[in-house]
Amino acid sequence: MATNAKMKNNNHLYGSIEGGGTKFVCTVGTGLNDIRAEVRFPTTSPQETMSQAVDFFKQQESNFGKLASIGFACFGPLDPNPDSSTYGHILPTPKPNWSNADVLGKLRSVFDILISFDTDVNRAALGEWQWGIGQGLSAFIYLTIGTGIGGGVFNEGKLLHGLLHPEMGHIPLPHDKTKDPFEGVCPFHGDCFEGLASGVAIEKRWGQPGATLPPEHPAWDLEADYISRALAAYAYTISPQRIIIGGGVGQLPHLLPCIQKKTRELINGYIKSPAILENIETYIVNPGLGNLSGVLGALALAKRALLES
Amino acid sequence: MATNAKMKNNNHLYGSIEGGGTKFVCTVGTGLNDIRAEVRFPTTSPQETMSQAVDFFKQQESNFGKLASIGFACFGPLDPNPDSSTYGHILPTPKPNWSNADVLGKLRSVFDILISFDTDVNRAALGEWQWGIGQGLSAFIYLTIGTGIGGGVFNEGKLLHGLLHPEMGHIPLPHDKTKDPFEGVCPFHGDCFEGLASGVAIEKRWGQPGATLPPEHPAWDLEADYISRALAAYAYTISPQRIIIGGGVGQLPHLLPCIQKKTRELINGYIKSPAILENIETYIVNPGLGNLSGVLGALALAKRALLES
Repeated sequence: MATNAKMKNNNHLYGSIEGGGTKFVCTVGTGLNDIRAEVRFPTTSPQETMSQAVDFFKQQESNFGKLASIGFACFGPLDPNPDSSTYGHILPTPKPNWSNADVLGKLRSVFDILISFDTDVNRAALGEWQWGIGQGLSAFIYLTIGTGIGGGVFNEGKLLHGLLHPEMGHIPLPHDKTKDPFEGVCPFHGDCFEGLASGVAIEKRWGQPGATLPPEHPAWDLEADYISRALAAYAYTISPQRIIIGGGVGQLPHLLPCIQKKTRELINGYIKSPAILENIETYIVNPGLGNLSGVLGALALAKRALLES
Repeated sequence: MATNAKMKNNNHLYGSIEGGGTKFVCTVGTGLNDIRAEVRFPTTSPQETMSQAVDFFKQQESNFGKLASIGFACFGPLDPNPDSSTYGHILPTPKPNWSNADVLGKLRSVFDILISFDTDVNRAALGEWQWGIGQGLSAFIYLTIGTGIGGGVFNEGKLLHGLLHPEMGHIPLPHDKTKDPFEGVCPFHGDCFEGLASGVAIEKRWGQPGATLPPEHPAWDLEADYISRALAAYAYTISPQRIIIGGGVGQLPHLLPCIQKKTRELINGYIKSPAILENIETYIVNPGLGNLSGVLGALALAKRALLES
């Protein structure tokens, strides 16, 4: 990428949408240290929600001038393939009214600029690569563990899409039912990783939200067990240079050291890299951008769309 | 890539090494339909084995003229990172005498041409992309299930390396010890995927080699179970457009339909793509090049090295 293009690009104004299942966050800014405006509203119907996003960007364009591009990171499952006839649509989902909604279409019908569309976790991976703890890496994973579990994979300058996009929360895991008789909460698989270890699973297993369970509660040792097994599976499958864990559960400070220790023990010396053998505390980390990786990741999407055009 | 470069390239003579743990296969040729010479010899010491490879290529150069490049695909674990100080070395391995052997160094000291070095499974993936059933795909997996289990990942023109290279055989899997009390054979993990489902595991569990067990033997239902769980994990983690299964066990004709059926059942409609919902028999497939994917993959490595130079 030419330095000129980079410099020119720094003056551009970008729009970003962090579209979550419960709320949407829209921002306008030029980058890391220059967010000019932000709005948050609940995720209701696709029609109403996307109209609110459009209204916000129109308002900001009248304040700050034209947007150069928009980055739209959305909850899934979604179709991120620009060559597909359902590009920009939400795929069939249990969430009422959102199945097959053409969320990108509404935006494109109003703004005749580049709009980049991807999953929320891919966006966060991109934010971490651009400005966070993924800088300079050629292959890493961004995993979020909160209400649900999802992950994005960055490899040699590209976010991995393939067939649709990864759904890393749904891998099967060893489940010792004598130790943990809980059946899991995933409506598709029961006791997959998300079914056993998501925030919803923790709350259902223990009868109270994870946030109310103290660090010494046995919930956390079990939680670290499942997370470590999943991280070992990802490390073997993808061979990342780093694993970034975000999300409300993933960022609990007492959980990370336990996950690092257990993952190294599980791999048991098989992956002969100092990154795992000696430096596990810089191999499995929390996001460098903290809670900003969502917003900044969507801006990074917008920026990238323009640079690649 | 320019058409001229491609056409010119078609006249080049390439060398290839398929370096396995028990035998080495070296060939010289220009591509798919033009293998000019081939030699096979047992894998003994690194010194002796690499000398035999060097002698073969020297002899062929005197017969056919200079080689343009060499593709060297080797058993692992190995260091495939050209920026690393141990690039081209075998990493610590239980195989006597091969730990830390600089297998690429010997070749480079004799041949002052491009030599591409990668894992045997990455090579096979490249062969399938160049001439086989991976043609035209942007993301797929090549998995080999034989004595051991390994996999390579191709994504948007690149083989995935990351930290070192994937070790897909070692993912943890659900293991119902009531149904299958066998402890697994992996010296590092016991009952990981390879520990439960490799050719070595089958032979140890049933007391006779898999090749002697008839298709109706319960071994195969259990085997398909483990393989399907692993494929579901890979599908969620990597989102491949296709999964190619090679190897002595992976290519058993009675096993494939069972793996296809079970994998679709396990995913249970979660990945909403016709590739899985409707066309599982073209989603999970055997190699297009059959037993030639090894040799041709190493040639593809040589070809690619030259094109990328």
